[in-house]
Amino acid sequence: MNIVQELKRIIPEEQVTVNETVLAQHSHDESHHDPHLPDVVVYPSDTKQVSDILKFANQHQIPVTPFGVGSGLEGHVIPYQGGISMDFQLMNQILEIRPFDFLVKVQPGVTRSQLNKELKKHGLFFTVDPGADATLGGMAATNASGTTAVLYGVMRDQVRDLEVVLADGTIIHTGGLAAKSSSGYHMNGLFVGSEGTLGVFTELTLKVYGIPEVIMAARAAFPSVKQAVDAAVAILSAGIPVARIELIDARSIGQVNHHSGTSYPEAPTLFLEFHGNESGLQQDVEFAQALAKEEECLGFKFETDSLQRAQLWEARHNLAYAFIHGNPGKKLMLTDVCVPLSELTGAIENAREAITASGLDGAVLGHIGDGNYHTLVIMDPANSSDLQRAEDVNHAIVEYALSRGGTCTGEHGVGVGKMKYQRQEHGQALDVMNNLKKMFDPNNILNPGKVIPRD
Amino acid sequence: MNIVQELKRIIPEEQVTVNETVLAQHSHDESHHDPHLPDVVVYPSDTKQVSDILKFANQHQIPVTPFGVGSGLEGHVIPYQGGISMDFQLMNQILEIRPFDFLVKVQPGVTRSQLNKELKKHGLFFTVDPGADATLGGMAATNASGTTAVLYGVMRDQVRDLEVVLADGTIIHTGGLAAKSSSGYHMNGLFVGSEGTLGVFTELTLKVYGIPEVIMAARAAFPSVKQAVDAAVAILSAGIPVARIELIDARSIGQVNHHSGTSYPEAPTLFLEFHGNESGLQQDVEFAQALAKEEECLGFKFETDSLQRAQLWEARHNLAYAFIHGNPGKKLMLTDVCVPLSELTGAIENAREAITASGLDGAVLGHIGDGNYHTLVIMDPANSSDLQRAEDVNHAIVEYALSRGGTCTGEHGVGVGKMKYQRQEHGQALDVMNNLKKMFDPNNILNPGKVIPRD
Repeated sequence: MNIVQELKRIIPEEQVTVNETVLAQHSHDESHHDPHLPDVVVYPSDTKQVSDILKFANQHQIPVTPFGVGSGLEGHVIPYQGGISMDFQLMNQILEIRPFDFLVKVQPGVTRSQLNKELKKHGLFFTVDPGADATLGGMAATNASGTTAVLYGVMRDQVRDLEVVLADGTIIHTGGLAAKSSSGYHMNGLFVGSEGTLGVFTELTLKVYGIPEVIMAARAAFPSVKQAVDAAVAILSAGIPVARIELIDARSIGQVNHHSGTSYPEAPTLFLEFHGNESGLQQDVEFAQALAKEEECLGFKFETDSLQRAQLWEARHNLAYAFIHGNPGKKLMLTDVCVPLSELTGAIENAREAITASGLDGAVLGHIGDGNYHTLVIMDPANSSDLQRAEDVNHAIVEYALSRGGTCTGEHGVGVGKMKYQRQEHGQALDVMNNLKKMFDPNNILNPGKVIPRD
Repeated sequence: MNIVQELKRIIPEEQVTVNETVLAQHSHDESHHDPHLPDVVVYPSDTKQVSDILKFANQHQIPVTPFGVGSGLEGHVIPYQGGISMDFQLMNQILEIRPFDFLVKVQPGVTRSQLNKELKKHGLFFTVDPGADATLGGMAATNASGTTAVLYGVMRDQVRDLEVVLADGTIIHTGGLAAKSSSGYHMNGLFVGSEGTLGVFTELTLKVYGIPEVIMAARAAFPSVKQAVDAAVAILSAGIPVARIELIDARSIGQVNHHSGTSYPEAPTLFLEFHGNESGLQQDVEFAQALAKEEECLGFKFETDSLQRAQLWEARHNLAYAFIHGNPGKKLMLTDVCVPLSELTGAIENAREAITASGLDGAVLGHIGDGNYHTLVIMDPANSSDLQRAEDVNHAIVEYALSRGGTCTGEHGVGVGKMKYQRQEHGQALDVMNNLKKMFDPNNILNPGKVIPRD
C-alpha cells in the first residue's frame, strides 16, 4: 500500500505533500531535541477529514503527530516514528465569539495573537501567553501558560469544551457551554496537556476576559535574585492580585537591552502588571511598592504609557529569541520546573549554583508568581561536553524540584525531554496513565513515544 | 463467606457495624430518592484500611459506596445494590496547613465549616460553600460549588492533589503541590465529580485563599425576576469582580423571613458580596449600584455589620431547610441546571412557567453569576400525582437547559437522578466514560449504578 496515494483519496490531493522542504519543516521544534522526518504531511481542512485520516491511520497502524507552528520546546511534534505529520494551518478559523458568555470557539490552528486581534474589537482578551505565538490547539495540547497564569490560570483553566477526534475517528465533545457542570466524567482536564497522545483537537471553546479598566505595569530592580524572589513572594502572600510577576535576572536584562534596544538597569528585576479599576489598583500598587522596599528595591519604575508597557512585555516574550540571536551557532537548553511558592527562593538559588558549577553561561527567569521558573543554558550542540553539562544542569534542577513537591515541567510539557521523570513524579499513577493511553489509543498511533514511557 | 466477619478481620471490629439504626442512617441522603439499606457500614481510620477493604471487596465483587455526611441531593450515597457503606467520619483530620503556599491537606471526612474554623487562625479561608456542611471528600466527589464559584471557581478548581484508592486497592496521587504542571496526564479533574465510581478519596490537597481585606455585602430588590437576572448579567458583563451574586425570588424571601426571623422585603432579590481592598470595592459597588438602578432596583441595601452579613448568608444557606421545615410532611424536588449566561433570563422565565403550569408551589433561586439556578418544588412524596408533576417540572427544566448548550447538573451531581440525561448531554463521549468506568472498576464495585448508565 502507498500511504501517500491512499491519503490523496481521503482528502484533496493538494492537502497531502511529501515535498522535502515541507517534511524538513515538520521534523523539528524550537528545542535542542534531534529532528526526525515524517513520511508525509497532511493539511486537513475540517473535522471530518481529521476523522477520516485517523480512521485510515488506525486501521493501518500509521503514526499521526499533530503539528501547530512547531514552537514546542520538548520535541512534542517531532515524528520520531515517521508516519503522518498533521498540520492544522488550514483549520485556523475563529468560529464564534460569544461576548455575553465570555466564550470563544476556535479551530486548533488559530494563533493566540490572531485571536487577541479579533477579541479586541469586543473589548475582550485571551489571557494565556506563552513566549511563542503558538496555536491554541498546541497550547491546549501542552497545557501552556505564560506570564498571566498567576491571576487568570493556565490553559487547562480556560478550556470549556474540546471537540476531540479519537484514534478510531470517533468525534466527541469533552465539555459544554455552561460555566459549571457536575455531569458525567470531566474529560477537559485529561485531554488538555495530553500532547496529541490521546486524541486530536478539532475545535476549542475557551474562556475569554474583559480587557481590564486599568492596566499598570512596573519594573522593580533588586540587589540580588534572592531579594527579588522574596519580594515577589511577599507581594503574593499579601494577597495583592497581580496579573503578572516575572523575574528576569541581570544576565537576562543585559540580553534584553541588547536585543530590544531598551536600557533597563542590569540588575535582577521583577516585571509586574496589575489589572483592575483605578482606585483599587492605586492601593494595590502602593502596598506592593512598600513590600518591595523592604527587600531593598533599587527602584520601582512604572511604565504608564501603553507603548512602553507593550515594549516591556515584548522584551520579556522575546527573551529566549534574544539569547538565541545573541549567541549565533549556539542552542539553548531551557529548564522548566515549578515548585510550591515556599520552596521558590531555595530552588532558584540551587539552580543558579548548578549553572555556575557547570561552567556554562546561563540565565534565570520565569513566572515566579506560580513558582514556575526557567533557566536558559547556552551551549554548542555540536560539543558533546556542552550538551552533557547542560543536561546535567537540567537534571539537577528537576531533581531538586521533585524532591520539594514540585513538577518536572510547569508549562512546556513532557514531549520526549521529560519522559524519564514520569515514574519518579507520578509513582503508581503512571500505570494508570499507561492504561489510559492504551484505552484511548490501542494501536499506539497517536504521537507515539511521547509523554508516557509505554510499559 | 460472612462479609461482616471478614471485614472485622481486616479492620478493628468496632469499626464495622450492622446496627439497624446505623444501616438506616446510611440508606438515604437529603433528597426525595428512595432509600436502600447497605449490608454493613465500615468506618476506616486510614488509607491502608481503605485499601485493604477495597482489595477484599474487589476480590469478592461486593459493592462499596463512600459516605460523608449524607447531604447529597441526587442519591449518590444510597447503596442501591447493598454491600458496604464506607463512612469517613473517623478520617476527619486536617493534616497540614501551608499558609505560604495557600494549600491545605485534609482527610475526606473533614467538613467545610471545620476547615474554615481552623483556617481562620491563619487569615485564610476555603471558598467552596454548598448549602450543607458537607465533607470535603463528598464535595470533591460531586464537584460541589455554591455561592462563591463565580469568583473563586468550583471544587474542581480547588483540588491540587488527591490521594485515591482504586478498586483493586492501589493507592495513587493525581496531582502535586506545584501551582502549575504539564507533566503526565492530569487526573485531578477526572476524579473530581466521579462520585465514588472511579476510586475513593483518602486525602485532598486544596487551594485556600487569604481572607479579603474588605468584604461588602448587599441586597438589591427588583420589581421582577427578569429585572433581577438582567441586572446580575449586566454587573457580570461589566467585569465587576463580584464574589457572590445570588438570586432569591419573592416566594423564597418569604420563607427566609419566616425561618430566619429576618424582614427582607418580599420581592425578587439579589444577594451580593464583593471582596477586595477598600478603594477598589468602593468603585466596584458604585458601578454595580448604577447598573442595578437601570433595572429599576427597588433599593440597594448594604449589610455593613459583619453579623448582619453573616445572617444574610446563613439565611441564604438555610433556604432549602427553611422550605422543608415550613412544609411539614412534604419533600422538595430540587432542580439544578446551568446554562450559558446569555440564556439565563430565558431559562429562568421558562422554569417559572413550568412550575406555575404544574400547579405545585415552588421557588426559584440560585448562583446566577455562573448561570446555575435551582428551583425548589414542594410536593407530597406519598402523592403520586405530586411526584409526577414535580418530576415533569424537573424534566422540562433539564430539557430546556440542554437545548441551550447547558448541563443537566451544575453542582449537585448525577447520582441516580440525572443518569437518564447523560446520553443526551454527552453523546458519544458517554461511550468513552463507560470505557473509563470499566478500566478503573472492572468488577463494578465502586458505587455501582451511579453517574454512568452502564452499557
